[in-house]
Amino acid sequence: MLTVGIDIGGTKIAGGVVDPSGAIVEKLRVRTPLDARELVDAVVDMLGDLVARHEVGAVGVAAAGFLSKDRSTVHHSPNIAWSGEPLRDMLQQRIGLPITLENDANAAGWAEYRFGAGVGCDDMVMLTLGTGVGGAVIVGGELLRGGHGIAGELGHTRFIRDGRACGCGQSGCLEQYASGRALQREAGEIADAGGVGEPLAQVRAAHGTLPGPEVAHLATAGDAGALEAVRRVAAALGEACGGLQAVLDPHLFVIGGGVATLGEVLLQPVRRAYEASLPGLGSRPVADFAIARLANDAGVIGVADLAARGR
Amino acid sequence: MLTVGIDIGGTKIAGGVVDPSGAIVEKLRVRTPLDARELVDAVVDMLGDLVARHEVGAVGVAAAGFLSKDRSTVHHSPNIAWSGEPLRDMLQQRIGLPITLENDANAAGWAEYRFGAGVGCDDMVMLTLGTGVGGAVIVGGELLRGGHGIAGELGHTRFIRDGRACGCGQSGCLEQYASGRALQREAGEIADAGGVGEPLAQVRAAHGTLPGPEVAHLATAGDAGALEAVRRVAAALGEACGGLQAVLDPHLFVIGGGVATLGEVLLQPVRRAYEASLPGLGSRPVADFAIARLANDAGVIGVADLAARGR
Repeated sequence: MLTVGIDIGGTKIAGGVVDPSGAIVEKLRVRTPLDARELVDAVVDMLGDLVARHEVGAVGVAAAGFLSKDRSTVHHSPNIAWSGEPLRDMLQQRIGLPITLENDANAAGWAEYRFGAGVGCDDMVMLTLGTGVGGAVIVGGELLRGGHGIAGELGHTRFIRDGRACGCGQSGCLEQYASGRALQREAGEIADAGGVGEPLAQVRAAHGTLPGPEVAHLATAGDAGALEAVRRVAAALGEACGGLQAVLDPHLFVIGGGVATLGEVLLQPVRRAYEASLPGLGSRPVADFAIARLANDAGVIGVADLAARGR
Repeated sequence: MLTVGIDIGGTKIAGGVVDPSGAIVEKLRVRTPLDARELVDAVVDMLGDLVARHEVGAVGVAAAGFLSKDRSTVHHSPNIAWSGEPLRDMLQQRIGLPITLENDANAAGWAEYRFGAGVGCDDMVMLTLGTGVGGAVIVGGELLRGGHGIAGELGHTRFIRDGRACGCGQSGCLEQYASGRALQREAGEIADAGGVGEPLAQVRAAHGTLPGPEVAHLATAGDAGALEAVRRVAAALGEACGGLQAVLDPHLFVIGGGVATLGEVLLQPVRRAYEASLPGLGSRPVADFAIARLANDAGVIGVADLAARGR
């Protein structure tokens, strides 16, 4: 059976027809409308296009935010002006196909578990390092959803007490230290300091800003300032993974999102910081780290697969 | 079917014959021998006594430490000189009954879920505040065991970066801030400072030390210094629960161990600190807090029930 996955992001809506092996048969993309009603219309239009061209059995829709326990409703979303919309039933009526809603980071984690870096690993944690930090937890081969349906918000675990203010209303959240935006902030501070920050300062002068891909490019080329920025983000991420190990004890951490394009340049210092922060190191098994394989398609593939499985 | 639960603690071994309703039919207790071989002999002797008097179908044994994923072996225990002993098979041979091994905090959490404060609550976290802090996580009505069998080590999540040294080799672990020992330390500091600490200082002068139950007694009687010590421990515990909420999203936190005898004197400031540290408060459901009901019998009852269920 083919299914459709729709991933509603803050800037774009991606949709894809996905086959049972996790391969995308056709893919569409539009900009995300600001208005919630126009957004739903855009999703329905996209689905109409895809369903007209393919025999589709079910539809999955992924979005950032807190879903209700029964996943019929979006309680609260950082990017979209939704609050308590009965999104699932509304889409089901307009489209006439079974709809599965899922948190976007959970969908991406599920895709990596089923078809990507986590295949065969039933106890896995995925951290998606984009603008913020998304999390997904696989326990015994199932998504951890929690008592209210909003488990795995790993970007909002406290990393530093009384630390940087976070958009969630708290301070010191992991996503202030281990996201794409954190990488840019660290690179900016290093650029300000001169010395090894000189190449970063030149990039900033040329672009008017310090784009994450430029920082990553410099780091991959061995620039000392960019590598120091990566090392700081990696140290935070690795230390946080040590704490998650004590709670969840996964076999594998999968790191995704834009920052993960750094590959081993990121993972090596992450592993060091992780091992240095593990309680009881030496008398306990440790987890592996891997870079996500499905890149920007993970949300689409994951929620399409969840729809195929009817959950 | 009756089963036996044995809870091997650092100072005593408790054993009980438990019926399917979680009631203890007969209970025994001996001091924990220091030598690992004598310890196993003591367990076998206790089991011999209980099995001679009751028709027992299976035996559960709980101990602190890291168990192997298949729960046949104790990898590492803080109190007992075990390392890699094939404890389950050894006991099975000597006793001739099916043996179930479990981590002691997991056993206590399971007991509260099945017969205590967590009945009916399928997504629950238990924190046992004794000398250290033990943790157990129930997800969808099952114990969270993790990829290597050692999930739920909640006392060793990092609470303060570069904080107090912990016996696990790390620093800043929650159990340095929210255990019975932490309560004694806070009370000691308040006693040292004079002023509201005067009654605590008098207790210390009388006992040569500040026993936890004495601190609790003063706090329950409204002593300002003892209440401040409780408030500090409660603030750490509540803040840590806020972080666990983001990861695990439980419906309920159950607080057990000696410190939990404080009841609402402890829980009220815990709830305040928890709510103050929740990411996205106002747009998310929150968890309840309850005091454990099975007190010191939780480990015995929980592991006996796990044995009855064959897991």
